[in-house]
Formats: sequence, structure tokens, C-alpha cells
Amino acid sequence: METALVVGYLASVCSVTSFLPQVWKILKTEDMAAISTRMYALTVTGFALWSVFGIMRGEWPIILTNSLCFCLSGVILTKKLRSRR
Amino acid sequence: METALVVGYLASVCSVTSFLPQVWKILKTEDMAAISTRMYALTVTGFALWSVFGIMRGEWPIILTNSLCFCLSGVILTKKLRSRR
Repeated sequence: METALVVGYLASVCSVTSFLPQVWKILKTEDMAAISTRMYALTVTGFALWSVFGIMRGEWPIILTNSLCFCLSGVILTKKLRSRR
Repeated sequence: METALVVGYLASVCSVTSFLPQVWKILKTEDMAAISTRMYALTVTGFALWSVFGIMRGEWPIILTNSLCFCLSGVILTKKLRSRR
């Protein structure tokens, strides 16, 4: 495999691994008090845009990382918005 | 400017903007109790690897976002490691 791709996939593993415990904690405790809706909306939008960027470039490390993080952060944002009702 | 680049820079702005308040809060309060050293080390490594990936691909949105986030998260990790002494 090409060196840049190896670096990309390693980066991908680090990003997803560092993001998962936070997601897991929020989903398990259902405690979303500390989550800023506005900031999280930006996070979700960022992941969505990076995914689009990755698709346009055909870069799989970017697509995989960001679509996965987009789904996870999307779940949290949805739960947060529902909890505010 | 090429469409993919526009998407990339928009993604970049979202990522950095959503990351800054967290960094600012930690640096201002100097309260790093909630920061997991192991997880943050992964975050910092991830940003470093993404920067290398961006440099190898010559993709400026990736380079700018991740090198900036690398520096900011690096400062937090350094402070956290020092506070544990």
C-alpha cells in the first residue's frame, strides 16, 4: 500500500479511537448537560463536509473516518436536541 | 477555486471553530482534571498523522486544520503531563 495511505489509515484509527470513549460515555450516561448544542452542530457539519471532501478526492481514510464520526456525533446531537424539548 | 477545495476549507473552519472553545476553556481555567492523558495523546498523534498525510497529498485544507489543532492539543497535553508531576 502507498505510504500516504498507510499514514492516512493510522491517522484515521487515532481519530476514531480518541473520539469513541467520549461518545460511549454520553450514550451510556445519557448526560448531555455539558454538550454545547451550537458547538456540536459545528462538529457534525465539519464531519459532513470532510466526508464530502473525501468523496470528491476519492480518499478512503478521510471518507471512512469522517462518515463514521459524522454518524456518531449525529446521534449525540439528535439526542441533545430531543432532550431540550 | 476548485469545488473540493472550497468544501475542504469550509470543513476546516467548522473543525477548528468547534475545537477552539474547548481549548480556550482548558487554557483559561487550567482545569485539566477531566482530560484523559491516554486519549489526548491519541488525539495529538492523530492530528500529527493527518498533517503528514496532508503534506504528502499537498492538500492545504488538511494541512492547515490539523497542524493548527496539533499545536493547540499539544499545548494541552504538555500542560496535562506537567500537572501530573
